[in-house]
Amino acid sequence: MPLLKFDLIEGRDEQEITALLDAAHRAVLAAFKVPQRDRYQIVTEHKPYHFMIQDTGLNIERTRSLVVLTVVTSPRSTESKQAFYAELTRELEESCGIAPSDVIVSIVGNTTADWSFGNGVAQYVTGEL
Amino acid sequence: MPLLKFDLIEGRDEQEITALLDAAHRAVLAAFKVPQRDRYQIVTEHKPYHFMIQDTGLNIERTRSLVVLTVVTSPRSTESKQAFYAELTRELEESCGIAPSDVIVSIVGNTTADWSFGNGVAQYVTGEL
Amino acid sequence: MPLLKFDLIEGRDEQEITALLDAAHRAVLAAFKVPQRDRYQIVTEHKPYHFMIQDTGLNIERTRSLVVLTVVTSPRSTESKQAFYAELTRELEESCGIAPSDVIVSIVGNTTADWSFGNGVAQYVTGEL
Repeated sequence: MPLLKFDLIEGRDEQEITALLDAAHRAVLAAFKVPQRDRYQIVTEHKPYHFMIQDTGLNIERTRSLVVLTVVTSPRSTESKQAFYAELTRELEESCGIAPSDVIVSIVGNTTADWSFGNGVAQYVTGEL
Repeated sequence: MPLLKFDLIEGRDEQEITALLDAAHRAVLAAFKVPQRDRYQIVTEHKPYHFMIQDTGLNIERTRSLVVLTVVTSPRSTESKQAFYAELTRELEESCGIAPSDVIVSIVGNTTADWSFGNGVAQYVTGEL
Repeated sequence: MPLLKFDLIEGRDEQEITALLDAAHRAVLAAFKVPQRDRYQIVTEHKPYHFMIQDTGLNIERTRSLVVLTVVTSPRSTESKQAFYAELTRELEESCGIAPSDVIVSIVGNTTADWSFGNGVAQYVTGEL
């Protein structure tokens, strides 16, 4: 936890995907202060015409490097979410050359009973986490 | 915002996908009264056996044109959600020939701090939106 | 409702996917006490390097049989969620040979107005369900 799902336009190779996921995880660690191995990331690649991403009138230009990230997480403060957005775009630009204008994030919240990390138990409820 | 994710059975071409996304966006505009460019849509196509969609006993028949739509949005009233379901099925039937019985929607709510539309900031928090 | 989205590493055939979905639905029926045909399941298969799934330090080993399940549902008790995790791992192990250590679940909640199962209406609001 958190669980990160990345929707990308197809065309990146394994090395590029791995670099992107590594960069995003560094942002998670910095902003959310989770354990190093609290890493749950899934990528889905799409044909270009499977994406229709605009900007709500913000005048933000998108390219084919676009990253749409959906995060499921237990509650976090507004400040830590803002820190995550800033860290994520910084990391993705530095490590992957992705422009901050190409990074969209949507967060959805849940609670401790909503997670099982394996073995059929809710580790935040049992006290294992 | 909202973010719309469409899960479809594979087989539509680019023109059909585009028509579907255009129709759905008209429903978003009509029901949720968002700005014209408040458009965030992603499609994933699946093999037929990757879908197992029934009807909770409602006697609704499904075909391979099935559309399963997941929406992430800031809070909206029950009335606007109902308007969206009605508009969406009307639009998809008129523009794409998709039967209302083939349209399933699930909405998940979040809040203003949960969105970044680019540039590493939370535009609803900063006041840009 | 609930809506279950399964993310898997590619390589299973139709029979294996069907067995997995059947097993998961038995766990839904047992833990959440929903009607038999309250079944909404979607699978997405991914390249191995599209997954980066660790264990938050729990010492849980992952294999390529890994199942990451995201559930969207109306509110359920902690007890029924815990029953679901236990039933799901039991079913997947018995019917599909998937180790409990390979099953990760994340639940997200919504409410009655957030569902339309077809025909452009919110069946939990109209009283049809």
